[in-house]
Amino acid sequence: MKYLHTMVRVADLERALAFWCAGLGLEEVARHEVAAARFTLVFLAAPGDASAQIELTWNWDAEDLGGGRNFGHVAYGVKDIYATCEHLRACGVVLNRPPRDGRMAFVRSPEGISVELLQDGPALPAREPWASLPNIGTW
Amino acid sequence: MKYLHTMVRVADLERALAFWCAGLGLEEVARHEVAAARFTLVFLAAPGDASAQIELTWNWDAEDLGGGRNFGHVAYGVKDIYATCEHLRACGVVLNRPPRDGRMAFVRSPEGISVELLQDGPALPAREPWASLPNIGTW
Repeated sequence: MKYLHTMVRVADLERALAFWCAGLGLEEVARHEVAAARFTLVFLAAPGDASAQIELTWNWDAEDLGGGRNFGHVAYGVKDIYATCEHLRACGVVLNRPPRDGRMAFVRSPEGISVELLQDGPALPAREPWASLPNIGTW
Repeated sequence: MKYLHTMVRVADLERALAFWCAGLGLEEVARHEVAAARFTLVFLAAPGDASAQIELTWNWDAEDLGGGRNFGHVAYGVKDIYATCEHLRACGVVLNRPPRDGRMAFVRSPEGISVELLQDGPALPAREPWASLPNIGTW
C-alpha cells in the first residue's frame, strides 16, 4: 500500500498552475487531457519528490467548488521558509499566516485549499518584516 | 521541498481510526494530544511509506465540518483491490464506486473525505461479485 496523491479541483487551470507551480514551486509530472469528457488532469510534485503528488482536476464546464472544514490542508517542508514566502508574496499570494516564528506559514490556493509550509529542521531565527506581519483571514 | 502530509478534520477520533486504520490499513505514526487547546493530532501512513502521511485533526469541541468540491480525494495504490474492498466492506464501509474493472474503487471516510484505491500495476481480471456491483451515492 502506498500513498499516491491528493486530488483537488480547480476552476481555472492557468490560475491554478500560477499558484501551485510558479508560486509554490511544484513541477508538472504528467498531464492528461480528455476532450471527450471535457476534463484535464495535471499531476504535480515537489522537485525530486515525484512519489507523492498533487492531482489538479480541471473540469472544463463550470461547477460550484465550495469548500468545507472536513478537508484541512496539504503540507510541504521547505528549505527556507522566508524565501518561499517572499516568492509567494511576489507572485501575489496572500500570506494568511505569515512565518512570524520562522517555522510555519499558511497560504491558500485560488480555490481555497490550505497549504501549510514548514521549515525543514529547526525554526529560522525570527526576523523582520516577518515577525510583525499580522494574520490575514483564515486558513 | 518535500510533501509531508494531507490533513483532514475528524468529528470522532475512534470512528475515524476505525475507518483509516482498521478499515483502510494505515498505521499510526505519531500522536499529539494538546489538552490546553483541546485538540488531538494523529499522524497515519501506509505501512512502510511513512514519508507521506495523513494527519487527522480532532478538535474536542464540535464544529461543522461540512464538505466542498474543491477538495477531491486522497489516493492509495494497493496490492489486491478486491481484498482491500472486501475488508473495507466487512468493516461496514460503503463501496461508493466498487472495483468493477479490477482497477479502481472509491470509498468515503466518516467525514466525507473521498479515498481512491488503485490496483498496483495492471488491473485484475474482472470478476463477480465485483463486476455487477452498482455505484452507491457519490464520491
